[in-house]
Amino acid sequence: MVTIGIVGAGLRGRLFAEALQAQPDVTVVGLAEPSAKVAEEARDATGLPVTASHTELLEAFDPDAVIVATPDFAHRQIAVEVAEAGKHLLIEKPVATTLDDARAIAAAVQGSGVRCLVGFENRWNPHVVQAKAAMASGSLGEPITASATLSNSFFVPTTMLSWAAQSSPAWFLMPHTLDLVLWLTGRKPVSVSAVGSRGVLAKRGIDTWDVVHALVSFDDGSTATLSSAWTLPDAADGIVDFRFQVIGTEGSVTADLSHQGLTVVSDKHRSVWPVSGRIGRSQVGPAVWMVQDFAAGLVDGGELGPDVDHGVLVTEIICAIEESMTTGQTVHLSSPSTEATGRA
Amino acid sequence: MVTIGIVGAGLRGRLFAEALQAQPDVTVVGLAEPSAKVAEEARDATGLPVTASHTELLEAFDPDAVIVATPDFAHRQIAVEVAEAGKHLLIEKPVATTLDDARAIAAAVQGSGVRCLVGFENRWNPHVVQAKAAMASGSLGEPITASATLSNSFFVPTTMLSWAAQSSPAWFLMPHTLDLVLWLTGRKPVSVSAVGSRGVLAKRGIDTWDVVHALVSFDDGSTATLSSAWTLPDAADGIVDFRFQVIGTEGSVTADLSHQGLTVVSDKHRSVWPVSGRIGRSQVGPAVWMVQDFAAGLVDGGELGPDVDHGVLVTEIICAIEESMTTGQTVHLSSPSTEATGRA
Amino acid sequence: MVTIGIVGAGLRGRLFAEALQAQPDVTVVGLAEPSAKVAEEARDATGLPVTASHTELLEAFDPDAVIVATPDFAHRQIAVEVAEAGKHLLIEKPVATTLDDARAIAAAVQGSGVRCLVGFENRWNPHVVQAKAAMASGSLGEPITASATLSNSFFVPTTMLSWAAQSSPAWFLMPHTLDLVLWLTGRKPVSVSAVGSRGVLAKRGIDTWDVVHALVSFDDGSTATLSSAWTLPDAADGIVDFRFQVIGTEGSVTADLSHQGLTVVSDKHRSVWPVSGRIGRSQVGPAVWMVQDFAAGLVDGGELGPDVDHGVLVTEIICAIEESMTTGQTVHLSSPSTEATGRA
Amino acid sequence: MVTIGIVGAGLRGRLFAEALQAQPDVTVVGLAEPSAKVAEEARDATGLPVTASHTELLEAFDPDAVIVATPDFAHRQIAVEVAEAGKHLLIEKPVATTLDDARAIAAAVQGSGVRCLVGFENRWNPHVVQAKAAMASGSLGEPITASATLSNSFFVPTTMLSWAAQSSPAWFLMPHTLDLVLWLTGRKPVSVSAVGSRGVLAKRGIDTWDVVHALVSFDDGSTATLSSAWTLPDAADGIVDFRFQVIGTEGSVTADLSHQGLTVVSDKHRSVWPVSGRIGRSQVGPAVWMVQDFAAGLVDGGELGPDVDHGVLVTEIICAIEESMTTGQTVHLSSPSTEATGRA
Repeated sequence: MVTIGIVGAGLRGRLFAEALQAQPDVTVVGLAEPSAKVAEEARDATGLPVTASHTELLEAFDPDAVIVATPDFAHRQIAVEVAEAGKHLLIEKPVATTLDDARAIAAAVQGSGVRCLVGFENRWNPHVVQAKAAMASGSLGEPITASATLSNSFFVPTTMLSWAAQSSPAWFLMPHTLDLVLWLTGRKPVSVSAVGSRGVLAKRGIDTWDVVHALVSFDDGSTATLSSAWTLPDAADGIVDFRFQVIGTEGSVTADLSHQGLTVVSDKHRSVWPVSGRIGRSQVGPAVWMVQDFAAGLVDGGELGPDVDHGVLVTEIICAIEESMTTGQTVHLSSPSTEATGRA
Repeated sequence: MVTIGIVGAGLRGRLFAEALQAQPDVTVVGLAEPSAKVAEEARDATGLPVTASHTELLEAFDPDAVIVATPDFAHRQIAVEVAEAGKHLLIEKPVATTLDDARAIAAAVQGSGVRCLVGFENRWNPHVVQAKAAMASGSLGEPITASATLSNSFFVPTTMLSWAAQSSPAWFLMPHTLDLVLWLTGRKPVSVSAVGSRGVLAKRGIDTWDVVHALVSFDDGSTATLSSAWTLPDAADGIVDFRFQVIGTEGSVTADLSHQGLTVVSDKHRSVWPVSGRIGRSQVGPAVWMVQDFAAGLVDGGELGPDVDHGVLVTEIICAIEESMTTGQTVHLSSPSTEATGRA
Repeated sequence: MVTIGIVGAGLRGRLFAEALQAQPDVTVVGLAEPSAKVAEEARDATGLPVTASHTELLEAFDPDAVIVATPDFAHRQIAVEVAEAGKHLLIEKPVATTLDDARAIAAAVQGSGVRCLVGFENRWNPHVVQAKAAMASGSLGEPITASATLSNSFFVPTTMLSWAAQSSPAWFLMPHTLDLVLWLTGRKPVSVSAVGSRGVLAKRGIDTWDVVHALVSFDDGSTATLSSAWTLPDAADGIVDFRFQVIGTEGSVTADLSHQGLTVVSDKHRSVWPVSGRIGRSQVGPAVWMVQDFAAGLVDGGELGPDVDHGVLVTEIICAIEESMTTGQTVHLSSPSTEATGRA
Repeated sequence: MVTIGIVGAGLRGRLFAEALQAQPDVTVVGLAEPSAKVAEEARDATGLPVTASHTELLEAFDPDAVIVATPDFAHRQIAVEVAEAGKHLLIEKPVATTLDDARAIAAAVQGSGVRCLVGFENRWNPHVVQAKAAMASGSLGEPITASATLSNSFFVPTTMLSWAAQSSPAWFLMPHTLDLVLWLTGRKPVSVSAVGSRGVLAKRGIDTWDVVHALVSFDDGSTATLSSAWTLPDAADGIVDFRFQVIGTEGSVTADLSHQGLTVVSDKHRSVWPVSGRIGRSQVGPAVWMVQDFAAGLVDGGELGPDVDHGVLVTEIICAIEESMTTGQTVHLSSPSTEATGRA
């Protein structure tokens, strides 16, 4: 039997708690949440104990593993202390929003020898999984180039996230598309160029980038392009526009996850996004499958998924994208060899 | 702990066996399969014992429940004997292909008091689930009309099914769309008119209907239309064309499951159907979720899903569709009250 | 030089007038319109004279041809008198809404020997034209079956048409899909069955059918199904849902004209329907191309398009659909031979 | 009456000849074509005289205007001499493939005072026209960013174009998307960064870029991203993948021209691209409408469309994209002021 604690009792923390409820050989022992109001709601929703901090959670329940589901920029102290306490980790993506934080977390994980999954949940997204299967089958040949767009409507930065000004389309969205491109192509990035603009969200009091476009060059000469905006109209179909394409020497895979074949329309309601939510007795969807596989891997020692070194690499590339947007220069990535070593 | 046996060790039987492997508190004890070759393959694939008949399966393992995954027309004897032996049942749709068979199965189930799920797996299909949620929310108002198309390319009758000549687009495909329309609208059907044509498959040696179109009238005056063909070109995207629409007084839901936002193209391979298959450690997809919920319902006594009376009703309507195609007359359904009683 | 008069100075009449402005060797001499207000607007918009009736139009300008763009049920007297005056005709679809009216118009046209086009404008719709080209190429084989859906949101019967209660989804929409199916398949219809329902529009004061579904059988045993509703939500993408499919023995053609690849979204505006409107200096779109080809055919004697006998056939079938909805019986069409003769 | 000659009697030249056949007050006097074989075919197809060179065409027919429909890199001498002879011009895009050539053509046009349209035919593409109308309406607010993808399958560089090695995805495809982005946003570009890769086409004997991705920065700080590949699989739907999006402060427009709602499938034939070809008596489509409007503008002195200065700007940007791909540096555009002056 594996015991798991969850730090952060917002929507994600509760989703993880519920997703593990029927998981064989796994018990969620409790959550940690500094906000008294959110903690109270989580107690009612889950029936689980909720402590005020990760320290108390560790003391009270001494779980085998901890899921870190706090805001993007608030991972370092928790993850380092949890790792140093010898607990396995699932850390939400991005692992951190500075390279210094990311490396500190990686050092703690590696120093204490705990297992760590970084929550790049699109590895469990059916469209991405099938794209990967197509690439892996060899029938599309070698990757020539990839492109990915992941954008949100204004709702996300202005309403859903209280901490949008401390994030950006690059930090909130590009970890997904960058991970996707790295996974689907298997290439090592060597440099990035990016442009972006600010001003529209700033006028609404959220001083961050409105939109980011990045070019990525890989060590074999191949390329990718990424785009993310936080300024789609709220009248759009859903809050997410998610599309990607990989062109190989013998075939291509093209996905538009924003239009999955279902349209519900009424004056009160409009939806086009089918795959997630409750099917029969279970929650289904990428985040659910991810956390269930994390728990199963802890039980039987199997593969967990993208590790902390991969998380550091993604953080490094997004730092470079932000630097390139600011300086107007191409930024060369310093340490592909570290990454290679880290994976080994 | 609940024990389950599976009759029929083809692709569906094996899929069910695998889907139950990690299910808490459930053990698949064995399969039954008359074909020695298929039995041998199933032994290798599942590591489970495979008997030659359902009788031997019952004798050898005395399971709590049995899944009937034999061809559509070969359900009666197995289902009746299993029910009479006091075992719970999951019977693949349609419950039977004659009204006499269907009623005999229902009588056995009801006489012995066992629990029975008929495998209308689209109840676990994400698109259908969300359509049902939209209808149930009330935001689309009352249903005015529904339409559904479910067709296959030639591959299905000519290659995939060895027993296509004993079935038809009406028997193989319309149980899905008929169940879907009945579930989404909640209406009671009172009459059907249908037209169809034969000749194209007959020329290929499969003497059955090429295409079937049916109109259904409900007791509140509302209507539905269903279409199924077995003659789509094999060069189409995938082997299935599946679309449906419900128009309500205040909104509509429209689905095109044939285009779910993923296109994989190479000279060797072409696919547009994303949601099914293996995600992380698990098989996912409607049939998997259905059988897992069936097992979970046996463990804890919870709701199983569409029952045998609903299965009889669907069989009755498809019999009426076949009759209307042959006679050119509207066929009135004899026993809506039986259905009402049966459900109570 | 050919001179043309237009009866009916609403949106359609003005569209036709403008579409003919730059047409070589053609002059629009004037319009006729009983409403003084509409006549005034048309004078301002077109700069053309507008008389109060078709009689005055004929007297004042003695045109070579007349376009009848009055409401569906108000064609007979105008068309008959114009034909008897020896003028060529473009009559909007349906040619009439009773078989008696339709036959009277056909008799007048044939008695006077004038040329007549019935305005089945989808013959000039790019999607339909390419579907026809695909069928005609032979690469899809012989048609096995066809289906077509053409529906409107509530806007059309409640706001756009002042005379919706005198029409229905069958009369307003099915002439398009019926013509399309007849043209694409080249088959002769022998019987129809239909169901429909009323009540939702009636509650809004428009006492007509909400929805109509029809099955059509052809003389070679093949079939088609048609659906039209007037009750789609006004929050839908556009006011039209238009889809069709023809399955042939060696291929298929599938169209969804409601989603042509363009989405414009703002809080004030939402559109997904690209092909129509002004391109460069010209109005483009099916109705424009139809009337320009009509004028060109008058100038040089070339083919005009669907003739009055075809218009009578369509009216006959829709009368049969309405009869079948009311009686619940399959209706056999009386006179396929008349149609065959009429075309020869 | 305006007389027009056409230089280049390939598919485009013949398309233009036919498109002008019924144009009021316009006569195509002849074509020029150096290849005897192509000239002969064009004589048969059009019934028009075909000279061996533009010089002979000018001498023989002294047309009022000339259409230059030769390969991209073969415009300069013809355009300069035609302009110097005082003839109006329609030059296919890109106006030239070096900045020196482009400026020489502009100088000749401006020096002689002739009128000149550069053939950015997407200005007549219904999807683009409606996107422009949406932007121009103000309901989408101010443009924040734009993206555009225009790619071809291998067929285009390996089979359709004999001169692909002298061109590239940047030269052949990006004039369209660059013009589209400039037109839809109305912004002035100040710098570009680009990455690309080579090798796959080179192995097939065509030594040019396989794929090009570019970032464009505008003088108001806004941005755009462009992608073009020549390596899509030939089994894809059609030979073109064309998608674009503009995000404004109050709305967005998104287009996928590769899926316009029609799918024709047979073992011999597959098509998803509906709008072009013959409708009724006429060729329709962007190139046809462009040349007809060019001719009409010559007749009545009206607006022609994008002028030679705009053509020079597009050439300058694509030169910068090619430079950036080679050097890995951001390239600043030298002369936005020239462009501003040129347009005035």
